[in-house]
Amino acid sequence: MKTVDLVITAPHVYTMAGEGVGYMSSKAIVIEGSKIYDIVDIDKWQDMYKAEEVLDMSHHILLPGFIDAHMHTGDNILRGLAQDTGLWMMYGLMPFANVTTQAQKDIGVPAALIEAIKAGTTTTGDYMYNMDASTEFVKKSGMRGNLTYMMRSAKFKTYKPGELYEFDKKQGEESFNACLDYYHKWNGYDGGRIKVLFGPQGPDFLSLDELMRIRKAAKELGTKIHMHTQQGDRETYQIVSRYGKRPTALLKDMGYLDESLIAVHLTDCTDEEAETIAKSGASMIVCPGSIGIIDGVVCPSIAFQNAGGNVALGSDQAPGNNCHNIFNEMKNICLFNKLKAQNPEVMPAWKALRMATIEGAKAIGLGDEVGSLEIGKQADIIAVDYMRPSMLPIYTKPMRNMVPNLVYSARGDEVVLSVVAGKIIMKDRKLVNIDETEYLSKMSECPDVIGELATPEFLSINGTNAGFMREDKL
Amino acid sequence: MKTVDLVITAPHVYTMAGEGVGYMSSKAIVIEGSKIYDIVDIDKWQDMYKAEEVLDMSHHILLPGFIDAHMHTGDNILRGLAQDTGLWMMYGLMPFANVTTQAQKDIGVPAALIEAIKAGTTTTGDYMYNMDASTEFVKKSGMRGNLTYMMRSAKFKTYKPGELYEFDKKQGEESFNACLDYYHKWNGYDGGRIKVLFGPQGPDFLSLDELMRIRKAAKELGTKIHMHTQQGDRETYQIVSRYGKRPTALLKDMGYLDESLIAVHLTDCTDEEAETIAKSGASMIVCPGSIGIIDGVVCPSIAFQNAGGNVALGSDQAPGNNCHNIFNEMKNICLFNKLKAQNPEVMPAWKALRMATIEGAKAIGLGDEVGSLEIGKQADIIAVDYMRPSMLPIYTKPMRNMVPNLVYSARGDEVVLSVVAGKIIMKDRKLVNIDETEYLSKMSECPDVIGELATPEFLSINGTNAGFMREDKL
Repeated sequence: MKTVDLVITAPHVYTMAGEGVGYMSSKAIVIEGSKIYDIVDIDKWQDMYKAEEVLDMSHHILLPGFIDAHMHTGDNILRGLAQDTGLWMMYGLMPFANVTTQAQKDIGVPAALIEAIKAGTTTTGDYMYNMDASTEFVKKSGMRGNLTYMMRSAKFKTYKPGELYEFDKKQGEESFNACLDYYHKWNGYDGGRIKVLFGPQGPDFLSLDELMRIRKAAKELGTKIHMHTQQGDRETYQIVSRYGKRPTALLKDMGYLDESLIAVHLTDCTDEEAETIAKSGASMIVCPGSIGIIDGVVCPSIAFQNAGGNVALGSDQAPGNNCHNIFNEMKNICLFNKLKAQNPEVMPAWKALRMATIEGAKAIGLGDEVGSLEIGKQADIIAVDYMRPSMLPIYTKPMRNMVPNLVYSARGDEVVLSVVAGKIIMKDRKLVNIDETEYLSKMSECPDVIGELATPEFLSINGTNAGFMREDKL
Repeated sequence: MKTVDLVITAPHVYTMAGEGVGYMSSKAIVIEGSKIYDIVDIDKWQDMYKAEEVLDMSHHILLPGFIDAHMHTGDNILRGLAQDTGLWMMYGLMPFANVTTQAQKDIGVPAALIEAIKAGTTTTGDYMYNMDASTEFVKKSGMRGNLTYMMRSAKFKTYKPGELYEFDKKQGEESFNACLDYYHKWNGYDGGRIKVLFGPQGPDFLSLDELMRIRKAAKELGTKIHMHTQQGDRETYQIVSRYGKRPTALLKDMGYLDESLIAVHLTDCTDEEAETIAKSGASMIVCPGSIGIIDGVVCPSIAFQNAGGNVALGSDQAPGNNCHNIFNEMKNICLFNKLKAQNPEVMPAWKALRMATIEGAKAIGLGDEVGSLEIGKQADIIAVDYMRPSMLPIYTKPMRNMVPNLVYSARGDEVVLSVVAGKIIMKDRKLVNIDETEYLSKMSECPDVIGELATPEFLSINGTNAGFMREDKL
């Protein structure tokens, strides 16, 4: 009889294998090392295996861990400071972002990732200029990292409306080299638990030469390009002014559209432009909550999928969205598209669950490793407790109601167990490798300092939230 | 020195008094009997009062308890069975609702109300033909009930498309009398903790004579009419076919529009019709999640408010929405309206928080009793733990970020304490007067029985969810 590392049993398993949700009843998932070794009937596994550890999840649903494909956790220290306002970046975020140090950003990073893990995220697609704190947390917490080093050569300064970005070759060179260094240091860490992607901030933030150099290097190393793409009218304006065509057309003409590209947002894309990108083999990340709050827009992810492209979900950042919870994004993607189409059949629950798991994994290049529970794949598994008001009752015939309840009703705190690469990283809702309280407590060091320094610009801009403060509306 | 029953202290209090959110820093709320006796500085209360019980909520935000103004908790036993489908009621809900007994419905009621309380709801606006289980739970749990007895004379049968409802005078008479009996038995219970409203199911479900009789009785008793109003094209069709005008016009001509009316949904109302209702003095309940999932529609609550009307939030029912969580509805009302208007400034967080508290209380006729924390009002108070990833960090200058974080980020489980009429009903997230587990466990008795009986109609209708089952998408 073979001895294995871990067996997890449960009455309901959504493997997400195949074209649907891969439902299985009463199964034992047998784990050896970082991988799923077998999936057998719950009443048979003990005839076949001895296990070092057994987790009997008797009133739970097992699922592949969720993928949050696009996060900027460095903004988490500014949660809740920039919503409900037009010109989100200039009028909302900038007064605070301009005075925030890297050390302060780093304090917010773990709290964002703790929030994500406690709502079922096992893979983070974090994406920043400085990835140190995020990488350190991923390393320590045991979660999976599909991490992107962000690059730009557009100078960091406040541009006037209509002013074209000024490219700084040296800055572009430095960020490119730092990205390469980061790639070589971390890509493949811990048996591939960390993968590194290349992150030009957007086609408007770098020169065409720089964009092409990044592409060449990514191709040579066999990694993907994770890039904000046609993310708003500001980008479209920059590109049209500079090159006389819209971003999608530019990228197409540059040969930038292919399976190497993960295009984020497409906020300003028409359905036709989204189709062009999808048909090239590129994938998409949609961040419904973030773009809903910031722009009041539902991005064309359905057009992208209809054209054959894979779409992942992302929570983006906390001063916009304002949270990092994939249950939130699953619900948003369904509801927002129903409202956009005025049709309740558009974007059903099972599609959102696939975006959070297997479709998301395919979109970010991890489709062969995670996103579904199948023999030989990485054991990234979460367990959802269904003895909660949000999940009850459980029907199995004539239809199962667990997927709709997960997408439309669950809040995130129903996730009680998380396993990544065969190792338990959360048990009974406690992260096992880190001290959550310590990380959360540190957050309180920042607001007074940042708030004090941000006050002059906040008051001088005198935006929506400044008005709300005067009027006792915050 | 006066001895009082309860003192609750906290660093942040949103009283919701005035026109904004009534923010106060570091206060003690002094409670005597069912009411707020005083609100004083946290460092002064011990000079003025002795307290039988003190709750030191040291890392918490105090708020008025939330109002869920429109619920059908009897449908909770069918959670998750009817979303993602056109013709929600006929193709989604009916195969299951048709075979569900009152006893089974009653088993689902407490679980729905437990879900609501654990997400901060202190007042339920439950609304059904049979209010026994709900009333019993409200009585026992200690929550506040603004309870509506539903009436109709339209026969309960499956109508063909285009067929007008058949009124049954005897059925109408019986439901009217049962409503009166229910009113006299429960209205004013426990010092007014339960109030009873009159609930004609909708203008299409009763004859004009019956509607007028209900109105007369409600006026005489001084209670309100809580009614689905222009809730969809089915209602509009019935009313236009029968009376040659749309529901709002009919109700206006009948003299039905005034401050006695609480109009629910307005799904099929134009902005102009919503304004007509608002200007009459009537109020509105909007259920964004429910109508979003069922119809893909954002109801005209902003037009209603702009015309001077008060709007409350409701979670409606679990086979549509699929949850009873006012944090969910606060977030939905903001995001859905931003998307509808493609404008991030529409419906900011503070407005949603007012709808869940003081504006909601005014809308349902409890504005003098609950909805804000003010001396002399009922002590219905919740405490939100802010040492959670979803709420951190806390800024107080130059702007406070707690209201945006409550509305856009919190999930409901941050609520750790609920007080209703001066009595603690939930502490450390445990309901103190009832055994939650007992109620939740009972839910598992129903699905097999209901599912078995529903199977023939579910398969014969062969709707969206039947297809999803065949295709392994549920």
